[in-house]
Amino acid sequence: MEKIYLDYASATPVDPRVLEFAKRFLMKDMGNASSLHSAGLGTRKAIVEARTRIAELINAESENDIIFTSGATESNNLAIKGTAMRNTRKGKKVMASVIEHISVLNSMKELSKNGFEFGMLPVDSMGIIDLDQLKERLTDDTTVVSIMYANNEIGTIEPIKAAAKLIHEKGGFLHVDATAAAGKIPIDVQNEGIDLLTISSNDMYGPQGVGALYIKPGIKPQPFILGGGQERGFRSGTENLFGIAGMGEAARLAKEEMAEENGRLQKIRDQLIEQILEIENTNLTGHRTQRLPHHASFTFGRIEGESILLNMNQYNIQIATGSACTSRTLEASHVLLALGLKHEEAHGSMIISLGKSNSEEQIPHIVKAVRETIERLRAMSPL
Amino acid sequence: MEKIYLDYASATPVDPRVLEFAKRFLMKDMGNASSLHSAGLGTRKAIVEARTRIAELINAESENDIIFTSGATESNNLAIKGTAMRNTRKGKKVMASVIEHISVLNSMKELSKNGFEFGMLPVDSMGIIDLDQLKERLTDDTTVVSIMYANNEIGTIEPIKAAAKLIHEKGGFLHVDATAAAGKIPIDVQNEGIDLLTISSNDMYGPQGVGALYIKPGIKPQPFILGGGQERGFRSGTENLFGIAGMGEAARLAKEEMAEENGRLQKIRDQLIEQILEIENTNLTGHRTQRLPHHASFTFGRIEGESILLNMNQYNIQIATGSACTSRTLEASHVLLALGLKHEEAHGSMIISLGKSNSEEQIPHIVKAVRETIERLRAMSPL
Repeated sequence: MEKIYLDYASATPVDPRVLEFAKRFLMKDMGNASSLHSAGLGTRKAIVEARTRIAELINAESENDIIFTSGATESNNLAIKGTAMRNTRKGKKVMASVIEHISVLNSMKELSKNGFEFGMLPVDSMGIIDLDQLKERLTDDTTVVSIMYANNEIGTIEPIKAAAKLIHEKGGFLHVDATAAAGKIPIDVQNEGIDLLTISSNDMYGPQGVGALYIKPGIKPQPFILGGGQERGFRSGTENLFGIAGMGEAARLAKEEMAEENGRLQKIRDQLIEQILEIENTNLTGHRTQRLPHHASFTFGRIEGESILLNMNQYNIQIATGSACTSRTLEASHVLLALGLKHEEAHGSMIISLGKSNSEEQIPHIVKAVRETIERLRAMSPL
Repeated sequence: MEKIYLDYASATPVDPRVLEFAKRFLMKDMGNASSLHSAGLGTRKAIVEARTRIAELINAESENDIIFTSGATESNNLAIKGTAMRNTRKGKKVMASVIEHISVLNSMKELSKNGFEFGMLPVDSMGIIDLDQLKERLTDDTTVVSIMYANNEIGTIEPIKAAAKLIHEKGGFLHVDATAAAGKIPIDVQNEGIDLLTISSNDMYGPQGVGALYIKPGIKPQPFILGGGQERGFRSGTENLFGIAGMGEAARLAKEEMAEENGRLQKIRDQLIEQILEIENTNLTGHRTQRLPHHASFTFGRIEGESILLNMNQYNIQIATGSACTSRTLEASHVLLALGLKHEEAHGSMIISLGKSNSEEQIPHIVKAVRETIERLRAMSPL
């Protein structure tokens, strides 16, 4: 039976072209960017090129506004804690939407343990942030507000530009976690007024263990990884050349192929949504249209997400329930609860995130597997 | 003309066997370790295996004592700042040898800006730490003392076991930066009494962008990268599977081949030292015997290290002057100054760090290039 991978939001294979491009930096063309000899020069050039590709993907003004980190979690920590710590003169109030990734929420909680006031911004039943609440709660001593570009569990895309406008009226900084969105949908940091943007490599078919942070000129997050002063001092440590070059190439490919691939995946996604919603008592979570084109997510009510996942695994189909990052706690997803779902509904969720290996031909098998899984689990359920 | 790479301490190519072993985790066998489906299971297993290989390399009691980070710089920051911050009840005094890597020194300086007292431990003219001074300066409120296993600029190996004994008598913690030593010479954290040990992947032919930290059970550094609670909560973020698996394989190979490779390199190294010291007014830096087997370092007096490096580059030979991590500042090496060398001597240094591509056949060409370079530069020098 063919293996069908529907969990691109949890882990994404590296694009073979990315590996082909970057693998020379593992052996032949390696060198320490700080070395003065010819190997060092080649490394510095490769890093600048990768920075340029990331800048182009999100329309940053210059490649100098991009720094590389070890991944989205580090980027989120640096952007939030670093910028908040640097701007305590302005104030000690920070905010995040209630559906942010756990690395954002935990960074905020850490600040709140250190004398900051951390406010949570609610979302509506579709997962869209409440702009009126944002406006009401923003004060002159608000510094960092963190709102994700799109949510990885429910696919909803947030009104970033409108939020940025409100935040800037009060002199605050908007950090946007674009882990689920960068490389998937167009992002324009200048037009949208984004001050700090977290970008993941692996989520766009680049290597794991590398990420980036866009930092608008003038903003200077206080670093927490200190040393040789790499990445303009914001993040020391010998550069992960393979990862950085690979991420650059992944960004280039994403920009080039985004429009076509989105069209293809959205078509598959829409058919999946239509056919899965025909199963009785099934609901789509997140926004119907303002959502990531490769993303579909459901609740089935009164059955366990873990059971759905394990049953689907029997069909050789890999899907997710809740976020991979928090799945091991077996708690109900904080994202689904924030939409107003009850605990028993939030437990029975299923997330389909499509990618390059998926095709229209897989649709009947996926839908059949979902239908049989849900019917079997409901027949067994005591609820 | 054949290219001769003598700068393994700055950047090391990935061993082809490491790439062969780990590359499947980039595409086929990828999965998020937190995912509950079968791909997640495979990832978790691969990570445990890599942890085991690292534990075996340094004789840790259990693979649970190993956490993966983004590299040696992050490991140093976490070990030092995290452990100091966690143990403020015991005291706020920290210490490091004066020849530590800049990531250690800058972590210590950051602590000193936050109310800690940071003491620098002197070394003798060979680079060996002053154990009497250590004993004298240790007090009951000393928490973290950081002493490197071996120095990357002068090759000197420190008396770690003796230092650990003194530190433990006062209830302090010994952090050891083994970036230059792990995988090169035997390390036994249990026998030597090491509490925290920084290990670099790339320095032992593993991928860049990954490192490890050994944490003795009972020590709980305060984390600064917060999120999904990976790496026992000490370091969140989706695991860099390729990097981690590659580092594990690199550790396995290093352990297996260390004795033989050391014998081979030491033989080349000793001939290089002997023949280069025949050049007039040339000195070996660091300890003659208590040093890394693949490492030779020199000063030539009154000529610029940068000129030596660029001249050697003309012979297609890549060497280093000072540490790559600080070379761009063009300041005299803090390590050489700590040995008691004058500024003009410390500027004219050359570091040879040998590795797998080097052979005895290269010796005549290397020595000839060094001799001609030094003679040419001295003829040109106004000093």
